[in-house]
Amino acid sequence: MAATAPRPGNVFDRNCPSRPVLEHATSRWGVLVLGALLGGTRRFTELRREVDGVSEKMLSSTLQSLERDGMVEREVLPVIPPHVNYRLTDLGRRMARHVRRLYQLVEETLPDVLAAQDAYDRRRR
Amino acid sequence: MAATAPRPGNVFDRNCPSRPVLEHATSRWGVLVLGALLGGTRRFTELRREVDGVSEKMLSSTLQSLERDGMVEREVLPVIPPHVNYRLTDLGRRMARHVRRLYQLVEETLPDVLAAQDAYDRRRR
Repeated sequence: MAATAPRPGNVFDRNCPSRPVLEHATSRWGVLVLGALLGGTRRFTELRREVDGVSEKMLSSTLQSLERDGMVEREVLPVIPPHVNYRLTDLGRRMARHVRRLYQLVEETLPDVLAAQDAYDRRRR
Repeated sequence: MAATAPRPGNVFDRNCPSRPVLEHATSRWGVLVLGALLGGTRRFTELRREVDGVSEKMLSSTLQSLERDGMVEREVLPVIPPHVNYRLTDLGRRMARHVRRLYQLVEETLPDVLAAQDAYDRRRR
């Protein structure tokens, strides 16, 4: 195996600060917000429309965690009414690309997963 | 852009059955269980040790979701006391590799994230 880079974090350790960071990026809404922002800068209302089913409160708290972790940048434009833009940082873009590969795999393999679920449920009946 | 494969699922649609599948694979414990099983077949007790902090109940329910989604296979060996092995299916291995890339990126970039968190908290003070 090739030599690996030093590992400043270890998500398997419950006390490692990397764990909450992973949890923000892989949360129900974190995944979808990162994916949507790969499409470019978005306003809050645009994100709310794109991430189907997210509440205003959850979107706001998801964006806040991602901003605090350095994944998302927030820009308030000095217009009336206020206009807030969100975009990925470089780090956020790297993270979002991995997240997108993951959800695209889920989308592509959905028929296999549905077949597995059906077989599982029939074994349990 | 290259032509893309047809997209049977769409995680951005709240009614798409791909969404719960994504949520199982990216859940707090789903991520770590998939990552641990990339290391090879594991017994329940081995997983509990490796995935630091998981309760018996949560590990059991995480494994059950992943098994139902066709990501994990369960093998009960006919010995006394019963001995249960868990391993990734081919699909589970594909998923787990993406998950690992994601958490490795989180681990590697942790110093940058901690610096971003610190700067964010100082701006808010």
